[in-house]
Amino acid sequence: MPSRYLSFRCSVPWLILLLQALLLIRSFLGFPGVSDTYSPSRSYPEFQDVNHMVIFGFGFFLMVLRRYGFSSTGFNFLLVVLGVQCSMLADDVLVFLRGEQNQVGLESLAKAFVSVTAVVISTGAVLGKANPVQLIVMTLVELTFFSVSRCINSTFLQVPEHLTVMHVYLFGAYFGLALTSRFPEPPPGLDKNRSTPKSELFSVLGTVFVWVFWPSFNSVLAYSKKNAVLSTYLALAVSAVAAFMLSALTSKDGKFRMAHIRSAVLAGGVAVSYSADRIHHPWIAMILGLLGSVITILGFHCVQRCFNPALKLQDTSGVHFTFGLPAVLGAVAAVVLRVVEEGVETQWNDLSSLGYFIFEDVGAFCQTISTALVTGLITGLILNIKLLKAVHVSKYFDDQFYWEFPHLSVGF
Amino acid sequence: MPSRYLSFRCSVPWLILLLQALLLIRSFLGFPGVSDTYSPSRSYPEFQDVNHMVIFGFGFFLMVLRRYGFSSTGFNFLLVVLGVQCSMLADDVLVFLRGEQNQVGLESLAKAFVSVTAVVISTGAVLGKANPVQLIVMTLVELTFFSVSRCINSTFLQVPEHLTVMHVYLFGAYFGLALTSRFPEPPPGLDKNRSTPKSELFSVLGTVFVWVFWPSFNSVLAYSKKNAVLSTYLALAVSAVAAFMLSALTSKDGKFRMAHIRSAVLAGGVAVSYSADRIHHPWIAMILGLLGSVITILGFHCVQRCFNPALKLQDTSGVHFTFGLPAVLGAVAAVVLRVVEEGVETQWNDLSSLGYFIFEDVGAFCQTISTALVTGLITGLILNIKLLKAVHVSKYFDDQFYWEFPHLSVGF
Amino acid sequence: MPSRYLSFRCSVPWLILLLQALLLIRSFLGFPGVSDTYSPSRSYPEFQDVNHMVIFGFGFFLMVLRRYGFSSTGFNFLLVVLGVQCSMLADDVLVFLRGEQNQVGLESLAKAFVSVTAVVISTGAVLGKANPVQLIVMTLVELTFFSVSRCINSTFLQVPEHLTVMHVYLFGAYFGLALTSRFPEPPPGLDKNRSTPKSELFSVLGTVFVWVFWPSFNSVLAYSKKNAVLSTYLALAVSAVAAFMLSALTSKDGKFRMAHIRSAVLAGGVAVSYSADRIHHPWIAMILGLLGSVITILGFHCVQRCFNPALKLQDTSGVHFTFGLPAVLGAVAAVVLRVVEEGVETQWNDLSSLGYFIFEDVGAFCQTISTALVTGLITGLILNIKLLKAVHVSKYFDDQFYWEFPHLSVGF
Repeated sequence: MPSRYLSFRCSVPWLILLLQALLLIRSFLGFPGVSDTYSPSRSYPEFQDVNHMVIFGFGFFLMVLRRYGFSSTGFNFLLVVLGVQCSMLADDVLVFLRGEQNQVGLESLAKAFVSVTAVVISTGAVLGKANPVQLIVMTLVELTFFSVSRCINSTFLQVPEHLTVMHVYLFGAYFGLALTSRFPEPPPGLDKNRSTPKSELFSVLGTVFVWVFWPSFNSVLAYSKKNAVLSTYLALAVSAVAAFMLSALTSKDGKFRMAHIRSAVLAGGVAVSYSADRIHHPWIAMILGLLGSVITILGFHCVQRCFNPALKLQDTSGVHFTFGLPAVLGAVAAVVLRVVEEGVETQWNDLSSLGYFIFEDVGAFCQTISTALVTGLITGLILNIKLLKAVHVSKYFDDQFYWEFPHLSVGF
Repeated sequence: MPSRYLSFRCSVPWLILLLQALLLIRSFLGFPGVSDTYSPSRSYPEFQDVNHMVIFGFGFFLMVLRRYGFSSTGFNFLLVVLGVQCSMLADDVLVFLRGEQNQVGLESLAKAFVSVTAVVISTGAVLGKANPVQLIVMTLVELTFFSVSRCINSTFLQVPEHLTVMHVYLFGAYFGLALTSRFPEPPPGLDKNRSTPKSELFSVLGTVFVWVFWPSFNSVLAYSKKNAVLSTYLALAVSAVAAFMLSALTSKDGKFRMAHIRSAVLAGGVAVSYSADRIHHPWIAMILGLLGSVITILGFHCVQRCFNPALKLQDTSGVHFTFGLPAVLGAVAAVVLRVVEEGVETQWNDLSSLGYFIFEDVGAFCQTISTALVTGLITGLILNIKLLKAVHVSKYFDDQFYWEFPHLSVGF
Repeated sequence: MPSRYLSFRCSVPWLILLLQALLLIRSFLGFPGVSDTYSPSRSYPEFQDVNHMVIFGFGFFLMVLRRYGFSSTGFNFLLVVLGVQCSMLADDVLVFLRGEQNQVGLESLAKAFVSVTAVVISTGAVLGKANPVQLIVMTLVELTFFSVSRCINSTFLQVPEHLTVMHVYLFGAYFGLALTSRFPEPPPGLDKNRSTPKSELFSVLGTVFVWVFWPSFNSVLAYSKKNAVLSTYLALAVSAVAAFMLSALTSKDGKFRMAHIRSAVLAGGVAVSYSADRIHHPWIAMILGLLGSVITILGFHCVQRCFNPALKLQDTSGVHFTFGLPAVLGAVAAVVLRVVEEGVETQWNDLSSLGYFIFEDVGAFCQTISTALVTGLITGLILNIKLLKAVHVSKYFDDQFYWEFPHLSVGF
């Protein structure tokens, strides 16, 4: 079907061009209330770590499918660089609506990078099923809604600015899940969505990068960087240990399974993200890491055996249990920690203010997750209209559909 | 032909030993005017980034050929560590000739690393065609001439010290091009200069590293680091987006081509290098990144179809359009930007000083490119004398000629 | 033999759980004299480098065996995250015994990371031969004895705290050697302990990471970071150059051998580790790097041909000549340097204090190496008791014994 191939030529480049032109014009014209000069920079090494983690780490982390290596890294790269620019634009609009000043600086870039992680996580859910046009549209829609959701949290629910961004895992995972439910399932005989030891090895390479840079990710926007770094590090260490333990416990013959470990070593970083800079005792971070790992491995088995088949979901790289469930745990833990902290401070006398805190935190959590699910579903419906030329299930998980191979031997 | 194999044993190690002994003696004896103690260090993380980018990033970036993986990374490593020491020596000589003081410190190491990038780029042009002896001789000659060219620029044309080093892409690319024109072309039937998806994947891995660390590279010697980092980052982001757009536009069927993307995502960093720390508006950097990407992709098609066959050039990893053309664009843009800036400042009244600025900048550009071409040609002639035992074309692009494989199964 | 497979299910997870529970309880209860809050942090980027180097660099550095890729990185990851926590606990105990205060902070984490390198190095010696239970027990025993050895050095021999940690290479290598002598040799026909070009390439990737981050490793605990960084860098550069030279000289046909280069490029970093922050002249560091490389390559040939067969040792990834011999050289060089320095200072008049210095340094060296050998032998005997279910030689070097492969095609 050459017409189908040609179709991308008429859509992808023009869509990207349109977007980039808009972003350039915005940047050229300036924006009322947005200064077009550079602001003083904050800590460069941490920004660099986040940059590295999102572009390289997640790009290779997603390289699990055996015939989808180019697309995994390539599209991740494209979506991140597009998304960072869109996210900065969305931020400028919000800042303008609130009547504040904004500047282009390392801080706004870092915030954009953290926001874009939502897109990366959602991509993991539809990995191999969405074509580039769909992915670009998804990026735009998701970042817009994530900005709106953050704005609601910070305006109406008094969530501090840097914590609103930390809802990124929750939003990304449930947006992706809702989205993937609108894509047709691949036929059961298809073996292209398997992994090979080689592709797993590249994925491990990416996972280690994500793991190593996670403390920078959780601390880059935090007020108390020191606490955020140490809590995240300890949570990650414990969840990595627990990942090996639980993998051996739950698999046949007591062997380790790489898919378990890839997901569960990261769970600690997600679980601790909301509360990283408010944790003052190492053991709290360690317990959170342990619980994160437990919930991920249990989720791996429950979600894949019961939940996904029941809802006819197909979550290619398992974002539900890798990022979704630990993020829920993290949000709950953050509420509990805050209540205990405030309760101890006021000696449990000021129950009305305590109730207000709970209302705020639970409200932000419910608002984020429901916005993610609803907008994910809507986006899923939009992405499957004819105009965007959804890929046929038989073409799923295949690099050859999107990349030219001028080589003799094809195949990963 | 065992005699041919043995030949390297009699040349490579002794050449390296001689060089290293010279460098050691220089370091031991000290140098008049050069203190042999350590100077106070500057920002270590940025130096580390540059180190990582040159050794690891470029090493794997060059790993495109399917049977040349060991040599690509290995020889890159060897040339960089040799080149850094030679470059420091060349700097010491120049500093001595000017009667100044010099010290071994992170700054002189960082400058040496940036200079050595010229060698890395030139290696890309003759990748798989030059043997280690030729590469080592090339490194020595190229670094010497690059130092001389920089010295002319800074002494006679008043180019600031840190900007003279930024001519490294221009010098490296055109030196490599002139050099490769003196090497015989491989026979058309040879398929060892193809890439495989596996080798491309390693090359993508290296490219992402180079991309991520480029802001550090452009800012490590700049006066206004903040500006340099942000401009480079924005230029790189736009050029990455444009790379995908143009790749889909220019290839058959609207598919992406990895070779396009590998070259064009880096174009923004090259194009913005001369002016990175003087750009104060994000949109200028973004436009430069876009133009860099356009010129690279157009160059990819024009150079490969018209220019190279006409001149019988064979530029293995495409350094002409990856580094050469964007560097020319960057040099032109730097002149335009400076003229506009100075013109606005003096309200276009002081045309004679404006003309002088143009003369200086254009002069530095012409001097660098012509020195690169002439010395490249001469070096190409030297490298093909009998003494250096040039490799026969049938042995091109093959690891087995230089590396021992004590394995059962050979082949990448 | 399903019983053998199931055995890991009954041992590995419970062992890990027990350990992690102990560490959690320790962290929860606090420890007399150990504050359970975070201490102010030191330089984060360097800590990050060390983290990256130990987890990622060494993980991929060890990936030399063709069917042992998952285990090399996976077990390295597990042992490092477990070991870091154990090492912090061991440090707390020592600090408590001395009646001092301690806090969880980046500095104690960094020290734990450096200590854990001993385990990583020892793992290299028994790579593919020890099962996870044996490795975990080894980690615990080795870290305990290394702490005791460090404590003896710092209490009785007045070695500064940060230098005691630098004995990590010496301890790790000789502990590993003594350990591996207690494991039965694989049959000569076994070809699973070969490497393939693909596995070598991943190993090179890891080696480059270790190389690049080594200056951070040697300087993270040093008093004079600047000196430590520059000395280490120069030593590494010279040893990398010398590695290529010596590889071409000693191999057949003058070709390079990747195994040589992988070991010898790192020798400079090891050789300079004890004295990195006390070296004030570049040439001393360069000479040390050169000697380190020479001793490694000579060791490669002598150890493999004479020493190992005589003692029936099988040192899978060559830790003896990669880390052991350069560490001995470094310790000797440190004594010589200190004697010369002190001698010049006192004009060689105060020979008794000079003798005392020599006694201290030589004593620390002998104590460390003999503790390593003795405890390594004992640990080797413990690890081969029936309870720990040592792997049969026919199952050596094989991922399939420890990892589930739900793929179609198995094999690296």
